[in-house]
Amino acid sequence: MPLKSFIDVPRESHFPIQNLPFGIFRPRTGAARVGVAIGEYVVDLAALEQKEHFALGQDRQLFSTDSLNAFLALGRPAWRETRAILQHLLAADTPTLRDDSALRDRVFYAQKDVTMQLPARIGDYTDFYSSYHHAHNVGTMLRGPENALMPNWKWLPVAYHGRASSIVVSGTEVRRPHGQIKPPDTSAPVLGPTKSLDYELEMAFLIGPGNSLGEPVAIDRAIDHIFGFVLMNDWSARDIQAWEYQPLGPFLAKNFCTSISPWVVTLEALEPFRKPLLPQDPAPLPYLHLTNDFTYDIHLEARLQTAKLNVPHIITRTNFQSLYWSISQQLAHHAVSGCNLQPGDLLASGTISGAAEESRGCMLELTWRGANPLKLPNGETRKWLEDGDELTITGWCEEDGYRVGFGEVAGRVLPPL
Amino acid sequence: MPLKSFIDVPRESHFPIQNLPFGIFRPRTGAARVGVAIGEYVVDLAALEQKEHFALGQDRQLFSTDSLNAFLALGRPAWRETRAILQHLLAADTPTLRDDSALRDRVFYAQKDVTMQLPARIGDYTDFYSSYHHAHNVGTMLRGPENALMPNWKWLPVAYHGRASSIVVSGTEVRRPHGQIKPPDTSAPVLGPTKSLDYELEMAFLIGPGNSLGEPVAIDRAIDHIFGFVLMNDWSARDIQAWEYQPLGPFLAKNFCTSISPWVVTLEALEPFRKPLLPQDPAPLPYLHLTNDFTYDIHLEARLQTAKLNVPHIITRTNFQSLYWSISQQLAHHAVSGCNLQPGDLLASGTISGAAEESRGCMLELTWRGANPLKLPNGETRKWLEDGDELTITGWCEEDGYRVGFGEVAGRVLPPL
Repeated sequence: MPLKSFIDVPRESHFPIQNLPFGIFRPRTGAARVGVAIGEYVVDLAALEQKEHFALGQDRQLFSTDSLNAFLALGRPAWRETRAILQHLLAADTPTLRDDSALRDRVFYAQKDVTMQLPARIGDYTDFYSSYHHAHNVGTMLRGPENALMPNWKWLPVAYHGRASSIVVSGTEVRRPHGQIKPPDTSAPVLGPTKSLDYELEMAFLIGPGNSLGEPVAIDRAIDHIFGFVLMNDWSARDIQAWEYQPLGPFLAKNFCTSISPWVVTLEALEPFRKPLLPQDPAPLPYLHLTNDFTYDIHLEARLQTAKLNVPHIITRTNFQSLYWSISQQLAHHAVSGCNLQPGDLLASGTISGAAEESRGCMLELTWRGANPLKLPNGETRKWLEDGDELTITGWCEEDGYRVGFGEVAGRVLPPL
Repeated sequence: MPLKSFIDVPRESHFPIQNLPFGIFRPRTGAARVGVAIGEYVVDLAALEQKEHFALGQDRQLFSTDSLNAFLALGRPAWRETRAILQHLLAADTPTLRDDSALRDRVFYAQKDVTMQLPARIGDYTDFYSSYHHAHNVGTMLRGPENALMPNWKWLPVAYHGRASSIVVSGTEVRRPHGQIKPPDTSAPVLGPTKSLDYELEMAFLIGPGNSLGEPVAIDRAIDHIFGFVLMNDWSARDIQAWEYQPLGPFLAKNFCTSISPWVVTLEALEPFRKPLLPQDPAPLPYLHLTNDFTYDIHLEARLQTAKLNVPHIITRTNFQSLYWSISQQLAHHAVSGCNLQPGDLLASGTISGAAEESRGCMLELTWRGANPLKLPNGETRKWLEDGDELTITGWCEEDGYRVGFGEVAGRVLPPL
């Protein structure tokens, strides 16, 4: 019999009792704390902790804090225990909360009445480049289809270190950045606002327990270090990127803002949506080989809302499953040098594009560097994002009867200073 | 009349009363706290704070803490006031400490009796590539002398985001990392310990007050955000780097370990050693132009101690002054996109090489990618660093009668796991 809550959760909700994603929320009055989403509500874990509903062998301050980092450090047994307690407390046949209206008043908040914050203090942020179709499309634009992929691409999950300080939570407006741009017809670059502001549809996972500096993580233990996923929009300025990125990679083109969704969906909630990883050729080196390596079937969409559109227009429909490299491979590769991962670190997928044109995860690919502008239903066109545009990414898994969703990550473009 | 302390400081010491660098130390018993170096001693600022010798308008816990971050956030007026109080308390003619042996016993520790830690919680770490000779040498090896510099190099201070979690304090041993290496004679890469472990002689500065996300920093205010300098060794694995770095820059080749010196030398202490920035051609864009832009005259050396050498052998002699881009330019460029810098962020110079062969700041350049091995005085040779080798970087400014020095950053190479 399916798990059911005494909280009424509509069928299309992202947050049924099977999900229970973790986040940091701030009520209208009071400090930020840890919560879990169910339906239209947030469950206040700090309040439950005070009522001694958790016995994780820790001090009582695990959830009365403005980041998940302490909880992340505890690892999977504690995460599972917390999830089991919550699923029990929220179940239709458990009277503890269901029949205690005073306690319910203290523990439940309407999501519309709270402000979400970043789920963790993110120490280091790494961005992979793990979508074959994204890498192939971008490489084709730069070097032609014969040399689209660098020789290393199918041997290792390419990645770079990103900027952690400018990661913001969904809803934060993004200021169009300035940077050096090199017009094709002049010998000198100019400083100005980017003329090719882009989104990148990505997902990212939060690190739980870390590894010590100098000690790699075996691929069959990689999952032990991963807590859960958020949606990510890795805003990018393509003209700045084109001029600055050689030889050391993107810098100002990416470090002005990266947006993530506030609710972290756990690997436990994603378990029913595991799928086999797509075949890899050449076979990965042994440190990247995991028998029965897997991915997840996660539907992903990007919607564009211009100032003039009546309703947002879906411009990307893709799936997490199309990524070439698995999260176990990404983590094992990241740590093979002995690089120490820490609770709260964020590892992102890179833009997730599929084979179909509609599955391309950024404007760069969708418009082929501006050559084929997007046509919107009201007659507007877009080569790149314009001031006032709002870009929203959403994602969900679907089973008979319920969804495990990620909510959304949204951001509106502000004009340059 | 020159400033003089009642503490006896030898002429060649790095830490006279003119310097007073800040760091975090741990006595044999007790918690880590903020200290300042003078001669062979550390002054315990937490102890002085308890005695109410500082009146910075803050709570009393500014120095009873294991990082400089809170102090960094206060900005230059507070830094200057603290320095003035310390120079007064340590001056030869101030009796407060000089004549109170009980207080001196509480406030002074011998440096040899304490353990130094990282000076700050480093949120984000950025590495520039600001040495013309380094970039030119590396570019010449990769692309020949005609195309040595990328077209952007003289227009902007090229940089990339590095890994913050693996920054360690001087004395920490560095484990030879594993990574993917592509032998020239095979079609597939292999996983193995790097065969071309290198050091990079760098300096790095710590950020004080930050800027808000979306708000650039004007170049004439850049210095307000900079607290002081440390020495840095950006350990690098050249074979891993060669295979992985395209198109997104270095990753595993650098993220296994980066070492810094424990004492942060303030801009105030460096003031007497300012020098005009070398001429730049082409003229920088206005946002990078500062009238009377400056650098510092800092002598820098790298010493190699092998297991067999009787004394360390100096393999690099260079100077901070040879850098093409100034620290004001680096900071203004970093923030021009609106990227938010935060207290405790670390911005590094990149390898500091001069025009002379002996001034090359890494083995890659010194041995020209292994083609011309270093010859050591005892007959040993080195293409790259070997297990058991210890690499030490030191640096100092010199005036008539005193030095303002940085101490050193040292690390010994451990064999691979």
